[in-house]
Amino acid sequence: MRDFSGDHRWLSINTATVRKQGDLVQIAEACARHGIRGVSPWRDQVAAVGLERAVRAVRENDLALSGYCRGGMFPAGPDQRGEARDDNRRAVDEAVALGAPCLVLVVGGLPQYSRPGSPETKDIAQARTQVEDGIAELLEYARGANLPLAIEPLHPMYAADRACVNTMRHALDLCDRLDPAGSGALGLAVDVYHVWWDPELEAQIRRAGRNRLLAFHVCDWLVPTTDLLLDRGMMGDGVIDIPRIRGWVEECGFAGFSEVEIFSNRWWGLPMDEVLRTCIARHRSAV
Amino acid sequence: MRDFSGDHRWLSINTATVRKQGDLVQIAEACARHGIRGVSPWRDQVAAVGLERAVRAVRENDLALSGYCRGGMFPAGPDQRGEARDDNRRAVDEAVALGAPCLVLVVGGLPQYSRPGSPETKDIAQARTQVEDGIAELLEYARGANLPLAIEPLHPMYAADRACVNTMRHALDLCDRLDPAGSGALGLAVDVYHVWWDPELEAQIRRAGRNRLLAFHVCDWLVPTTDLLLDRGMMGDGVIDIPRIRGWVEECGFAGFSEVEIFSNRWWGLPMDEVLRTCIARHRSAV
Repeated sequence: MRDFSGDHRWLSINTATVRKQGDLVQIAEACARHGIRGVSPWRDQVAAVGLERAVRAVRENDLALSGYCRGGMFPAGPDQRGEARDDNRRAVDEAVALGAPCLVLVVGGLPQYSRPGSPETKDIAQARTQVEDGIAELLEYARGANLPLAIEPLHPMYAADRACVNTMRHALDLCDRLDPAGSGALGLAVDVYHVWWDPELEAQIRRAGRNRLLAFHVCDWLVPTTDLLLDRGMMGDGVIDIPRIRGWVEECGFAGFSEVEIFSNRWWGLPMDEVLRTCIARHRSAV
Repeated sequence: MRDFSGDHRWLSINTATVRKQGDLVQIAEACARHGIRGVSPWRDQVAAVGLERAVRAVRENDLALSGYCRGGMFPAGPDQRGEARDDNRRAVDEAVALGAPCLVLVVGGLPQYSRPGSPETKDIAQARTQVEDGIAELLEYARGANLPLAIEPLHPMYAADRACVNTMRHALDLCDRLDPAGSGALGLAVDVYHVWWDPELEAQIRRAGRNRLLAFHVCDWLVPTTDLLLDRGMMGDGVIDIPRIRGWVEECGFAGFSEVEIFSNRWWGLPMDEVLRTCIARHRSAV
C-alpha cells in the first residue's frame, strides 16, 4: 500500500468539492498553487467557462485528470431517450478533449427523476433494464473514442432519484455482461461514501480486479448526517475506515489518484485555500 | 395475494407511527375505535405506562400484536456488554407478557452509537461479529421463552448508528448460521422502507420462505427525503411498489399483518384519528 503520509502526489480534487468558491479556472489555478496534480471536473463547471477554456486551464496548470463527472441518467421516457443518448455522447467527447482517463457514470434512478418530463413510474427493475441498455449503447460509442466508462454505484439512499445501481456486486454484474472479456473499456468508480457499509465490499473489490478499478473517491460518512446529499464529511471526520478500503483497492493493483469528492454546505462555506489545505492534510493523515 | 381493498383486517399499527399524539393506552383505544386489530408497540411506550397497564390495554381492546419493538443494539464495549445482554432478555420477557409473535431486532451499528459510552471504533466488521454473537446468545434465551426473534435489516444509511445488518442476504446468512434447521425461532422483519432498493429483494424473499418471514412493515420512500430518520412517507406518497413486494412475501406463504411504521415529523403533527384514518385508506389502496 502506498505511503501517503509524506506528500500528496496522488491527491486529486473533484471540482465539486469547491464548486461554490470559484469557477473551474480558479479551481485549477488554486490546485496548482497547492501542488495538487489531479482534478476531476464536472460538466456544468466546464460548460460555465467553455470547453476550450477548461482544456487550457488544465494544460496551463499541468493538471492530470482522475475522471470526468459525469455521464449517465439513462432511464428516460420515450420522448427523452434521444436527448439522453446525445447528451451522453457529448460527455464522452468532452472527456476526451479534456484528457480524462474515464467518464464516470451516475446511471440514474426512476425515469421521472433521471430525465425530468419522463412519465412517472415505480418500476425500478425496468429502470435497471434501461440502465443496462443505455450503458451498452454508450459503450460502443466510448470504445470508438477509446474512453473507458466507470460505473459508480451510489449509496442505496439515492436509488430512486440518482442511481439505481447501488452495490459493487450489481455494477460488476453489469460489467460481466457488457464487457465479459474485461477489456478495460468498462469498469467502476469506487467511492467509499457509497460502498463503505457493504459487507461484500472487500470481496467485490477483489472481484473487480485491476482492469475494472478505474477510479477511487474518498470523503467520509458523518454521524449524524443531516442532509442526504450535502452533508458529506472530510476524510477523518466520520466513521469510514478509509485506509482499510484503500488497502484492498491497491492490493488489486490500483495505483491511481485518490480523488476527494465532498458535497457539503459546511465546506462550501469556507475559503477555497482552506479547503484545499485541509484536503491535503487529511489525504496524508486519514486516507 | 390477499385482497386488502375491501377491509383492513390485516392492518397493524406500529405505535411509533402516532407516538407524539398519545400514550400507548390512548393509541390502543384509538385503534379499537377504528376497527384496527393489530398493533406493534415500542418498549419506551410500554415503559411509559407500565408493562401491566400495557398488557391490559392490549387485552381490553382486543388487539393482537404483530411484533414488539425492539431488542438488539448488540455491539458494545466490554463495560456495556452485560447491560446489553440483560436489556435484551428483558425485551424478550416483555414481548412474552404482551403476547407478541416475535421480538424485532435492530441489531446496532458501531458500539459507540449502539451502546453509548462504548469505545469509539470504525471497525464495522467487528461490530458485525458482535451482532452475530449477541443474537446467538439471545436466541438461546428466546427459545426458552418460545419467542421468535426477527432480525430487521435496516437501510444502509443506518449502518453506522443503528444497524450494521443492511441487506436481506446478510440477515439470512445470519439465520442460516444460527438456526440452520430453519426452526422458526429466528427470522426476519421485512420493512419495505429498508429493502425496496435491493436488486436481490425478490430472490432473498424467496430464500427466506415462510418460516423466516416473521413480520412485514410498510411505509413509503419520499423523493426528496429531507431527514434520514424522520421523513418516512405514508404508503402511496412515495416511490415504493408496495403491492409488488407484498405479493412476493405472500407467495412464500406469509399471511400475517401488514404493519404500518412511519417515523415522520409531518404525520406526528396531525391528530391521531386523522393519521389512523389515512393508514386505513392507504392500506386498502396502496398496500
